[in-house]
Amino acid sequence: MSNTIEARLASAERLSVSRLKGKSTPQESTVTGTASPPFGMIREWADSISARLPAFAAQVAVIHHGDLVVDLAIGDDADGVTGVYSSSKGVSALVIALLVQGGLLDLDAPVARYWPEFAQAGKQDVLVRQLLSHQGGLPGVPGGFTDDELTHSELAAERLAAATPSWRPGAMFGYHGITIGVFMEEFVRRITGTTLQALYAAELREPYGIDFFLGLPESADARYRPLRPPVEAPDPAELERLQLPDDSFNLGVFAPDPDGVTAWDRAPLPNQPHIRRAGWAAAGGTGSARGLARAYAVAYGGADGSPALISPATRAALAQEQVFGTDRVLNRTMAFGIVYEKSHPGFDFGSHLALGHDGAGGALGYYDPHYDVAVGYIPQQLDVPTGKLPHAFRLSRLVRDALKG
Amino acid sequence: MSNTIEARLASAERLSVSRLKGKSTPQESTVTGTASPPFGMIREWADSISARLPAFAAQVAVIHHGDLVVDLAIGDDADGVTGVYSSSKGVSALVIALLVQGGLLDLDAPVARYWPEFAQAGKQDVLVRQLLSHQGGLPGVPGGFTDDELTHSELAAERLAAATPSWRPGAMFGYHGITIGVFMEEFVRRITGTTLQALYAAELREPYGIDFFLGLPESADARYRPLRPPVEAPDPAELERLQLPDDSFNLGVFAPDPDGVTAWDRAPLPNQPHIRRAGWAAAGGTGSARGLARAYAVAYGGADGSPALISPATRAALAQEQVFGTDRVLNRTMAFGIVYEKSHPGFDFGSHLALGHDGAGGALGYYDPHYDVAVGYIPQQLDVPTGKLPHAFRLSRLVRDALKG
Amino acid sequence: MSNTIEARLASAERLSVSRLKGKSTPQESTVTGTASPPFGMIREWADSISARLPAFAAQVAVIHHGDLVVDLAIGDDADGVTGVYSSSKGVSALVIALLVQGGLLDLDAPVARYWPEFAQAGKQDVLVRQLLSHQGGLPGVPGGFTDDELTHSELAAERLAAATPSWRPGAMFGYHGITIGVFMEEFVRRITGTTLQALYAAELREPYGIDFFLGLPESADARYRPLRPPVEAPDPAELERLQLPDDSFNLGVFAPDPDGVTAWDRAPLPNQPHIRRAGWAAAGGTGSARGLARAYAVAYGGADGSPALISPATRAALAQEQVFGTDRVLNRTMAFGIVYEKSHPGFDFGSHLALGHDGAGGALGYYDPHYDVAVGYIPQQLDVPTGKLPHAFRLSRLVRDALKG
Repeated sequence: MSNTIEARLASAERLSVSRLKGKSTPQESTVTGTASPPFGMIREWADSISARLPAFAAQVAVIHHGDLVVDLAIGDDADGVTGVYSSSKGVSALVIALLVQGGLLDLDAPVARYWPEFAQAGKQDVLVRQLLSHQGGLPGVPGGFTDDELTHSELAAERLAAATPSWRPGAMFGYHGITIGVFMEEFVRRITGTTLQALYAAELREPYGIDFFLGLPESADARYRPLRPPVEAPDPAELERLQLPDDSFNLGVFAPDPDGVTAWDRAPLPNQPHIRRAGWAAAGGTGSARGLARAYAVAYGGADGSPALISPATRAALAQEQVFGTDRVLNRTMAFGIVYEKSHPGFDFGSHLALGHDGAGGALGYYDPHYDVAVGYIPQQLDVPTGKLPHAFRLSRLVRDALKG
Repeated sequence: MSNTIEARLASAERLSVSRLKGKSTPQESTVTGTASPPFGMIREWADSISARLPAFAAQVAVIHHGDLVVDLAIGDDADGVTGVYSSSKGVSALVIALLVQGGLLDLDAPVARYWPEFAQAGKQDVLVRQLLSHQGGLPGVPGGFTDDELTHSELAAERLAAATPSWRPGAMFGYHGITIGVFMEEFVRRITGTTLQALYAAELREPYGIDFFLGLPESADARYRPLRPPVEAPDPAELERLQLPDDSFNLGVFAPDPDGVTAWDRAPLPNQPHIRRAGWAAAGGTGSARGLARAYAVAYGGADGSPALISPATRAALAQEQVFGTDRVLNRTMAFGIVYEKSHPGFDFGSHLALGHDGAGGALGYYDPHYDVAVGYIPQQLDVPTGKLPHAFRLSRLVRDALKG
Repeated sequence: MSNTIEARLASAERLSVSRLKGKSTPQESTVTGTASPPFGMIREWADSISARLPAFAAQVAVIHHGDLVVDLAIGDDADGVTGVYSSSKGVSALVIALLVQGGLLDLDAPVARYWPEFAQAGKQDVLVRQLLSHQGGLPGVPGGFTDDELTHSELAAERLAAATPSWRPGAMFGYHGITIGVFMEEFVRRITGTTLQALYAAELREPYGIDFFLGLPESADARYRPLRPPVEAPDPAELERLQLPDDSFNLGVFAPDPDGVTAWDRAPLPNQPHIRRAGWAAAGGTGSARGLARAYAVAYGGADGSPALISPATRAALAQEQVFGTDRVLNRTMAFGIVYEKSHPGFDFGSHLALGHDGAGGALGYYDPHYDVAVGYIPQQLDVPTGKLPHAFRLSRLVRDALKG
């Protein structure tokens, strides 16, 4: 969807230009919170960002061996929640992990075992693990999806069940930025009869007090901090590199409304109340960095003295790398496990055991078993959208250096 | 075969240097023909090429919703036919499409079902779809093929049936620039008892009046316009990038004659009368741009008010992308469906639904279902052979912009 | 293991800094030996290296049609033997070739047929050909291997049998720099009851008088010439390019000793007596260039008037390319057959039929059936470790040019 980066930046700017008015004078921005030893470098890093970019706001949380050892806010929104775009997928995948661990979802089964209608148009043999690692060739459908179809994703699923894959399933992979959320939601619906969002709330968010929402309730909307445009101008060369032909696979994701505007171009997705209220599994999650890190810690590392909810074997099954190479949709090198992004030299956020997910705008959540560390990073001020996550990757490097040194 | 680019340019130059003599003074070159609204930009583009490169000649045809909406000649050969090298494959594949549609050729069957001798040397399980998407590991044979073996391709097929694949079939892909034509011809021969060329003439060219030949009859030879050398000097850096080691997979395609010269180095392939007369499925096709566009339109879009000869389901089966990544033979990024090239950000000629094929020298034919548009572009003056098709890709972009805007 | 390049260079420097003292004045270094026509260019090449880099030492051997046609030493160690790091793999693979040829090892069988314990943690279906072409996802184990486990590799094999693959076997490939040696050793042990090293000595080294050792006996240690640091400063940009995150897949290869030092960082592996004495199949081989070339010639080309020990069909089975693309561990383009490296445009040492292996430091051994030539190149002075083998690839180009021209 990089082709619409400029449109999105422009629309984000429309939303926030008034807010930014009067901020042209650099101001002293306060970093609040704590970074316990040996993570002092992270505090220094946050201070340096704040000094250089006074208008920048982000939250940082690190949980090590179950303890919240870094809890910082750059800017003034320590108690806010913000949309994280695709970092939502890492949290949604926790529900998939619960199904796998419970023996309710077999990654080696054909998708059609759980979803019989999927066996159309040559898709009868596509495996669950292929569909959940961007190999299915279904990044969109002709004409794209309406917001309503994505919110009531059984409608989107019905269209995907009928679709012919753009590529031979398993022959390559390409980021299914939105439809992988539909697939996750459909699996949960078919297997449990309830929604992924409801299961997440009941099994994870509520019992473990995780400040991360797949479906932000109206009662919490006052805490929502809208995503704002970048404070640094994107490098034109980087933007140029990201431009994909506008009739590439991005066709067929979002349907234009009567005015020809799609959900993507309208405004940052989580800033649209109906999207964050629905909590699309793919990109509608909202939370604090504490919440994002805690979700990973509770599931994969253990928190509050309790063991990890997900066993090491199930975690390894999801973390096992399924694909690596040039992503056919994003046209850059990517590596994926089951739903999760994997770290690699061009996208470096952890050891080869780590599992996580970034989001458009620069958010990142992950758990790295090699260090037993869970990290949440949520900018409220969008990062420059180069796909390189300059802040999040730097944070990850500092975390690892602290734990090694 | 990029390693012989310079040899080929040199031989093309030998052929045409006399013709070019006396043309050193820039002259006013006329673009003839029509470009209906909204395609006026294409006329302007053609004019600008003509003004910049007076010696350049090419034909351009665009069929939209069944109507010939652009019909231009740059230079003075509006009624000529010219060789298109590998753009022939896109027309040859129409015969494959007819076999698939008729249930006579199953893409998921092993090749050996139709061609039992192919089951030698570990090839018993290679699928038709793999062989027709450059995955078979058979770009050549030791010593290469004589012209006679390629013209009577049952002889070439016999050698390929005995050969050990250079790579494990299915493990990677690499352009089978010549042998994929032998495979298509052999399938047609085995299944129908006649030749691909005869079937093309009987089922497509004659009934639909398509001015594109797989086998140019002697009676039409007066219309043949030989391919001429580029008018722009190749960028040395581009040529350097294209150089492959001369003992790479290009070994084993063309056998040297007693003087050590191969068919490839002798002269542009379609300029050699016996090759265009035979109409090698891989690279021996000749036609006008009108004919090339019409072949795609008749088959995939419909023309003259008739529906497409090939159903959307069969078209989708051939257009489905089978491989994407670094081509092992060409050493650059490519994407292929069944025979057809697929558009991708580094080779951008259409939406992800499009199917087409370029040719050495710069020709391009394709159909794009997203726009219901068929395009034929045939230069008589070779483009600079960088694999980037500067003219054809620009044309494709203009076509799409016109249909969007 | 590129991340430790600087550490390794530093340790190599420690070892040899005293030796290098007093050599700062350029001196006339003698190239000794012979290069028969048409290989005179190779002598000139050797002279030019010697003139430019007086401290550089290396051996060069070329066997063409069974005859030793080039036998040169740059520097003064014509009769020495030196460690070759991973060029060892090409010799170890000769024992694998013998098993394949004898029908004792089926490349298409599951590994577990020979090694039942391997069928743990989802590895029951991994094929021998996948494991021996770096597709198994087992470049290391948590914590890494001790030297003792690698020397008594049944211990390393036991840990690998229990391990969960880091990636889905077959989904990608990444250099198993050390563990592929463990796999080769385990196959030989399971199938024959003896060690790969013993079988190599009994079936190849002794009967054919091959001056290459998998296990250098103490009696030959006086001939050992230690690997010395590069005489040319590495290009910082190249080193930068090679840097991999230090918690990438290289984690888990070598266990640190109580001081935190691993075998890799301690000193060049073959300089460590216990490693060259054990002759690790992956990286513990030592020999002369004559011996390395002769091993390839005896096996694949024939020597002393005898036919090749390995049949063309078995050779083709091992030479058939199994994987090509970005190596997940090395993060650069590689191509592998069974154990052997394959030539490609970015790693060009022969025709597409050639099979060989380079070693860290710059050694290279290969056989190319297209030219019937076996080559051994062993530097005693390490090459600059850029993975580009400037000397070895240049040598290979000269060999081919001589045989063509």
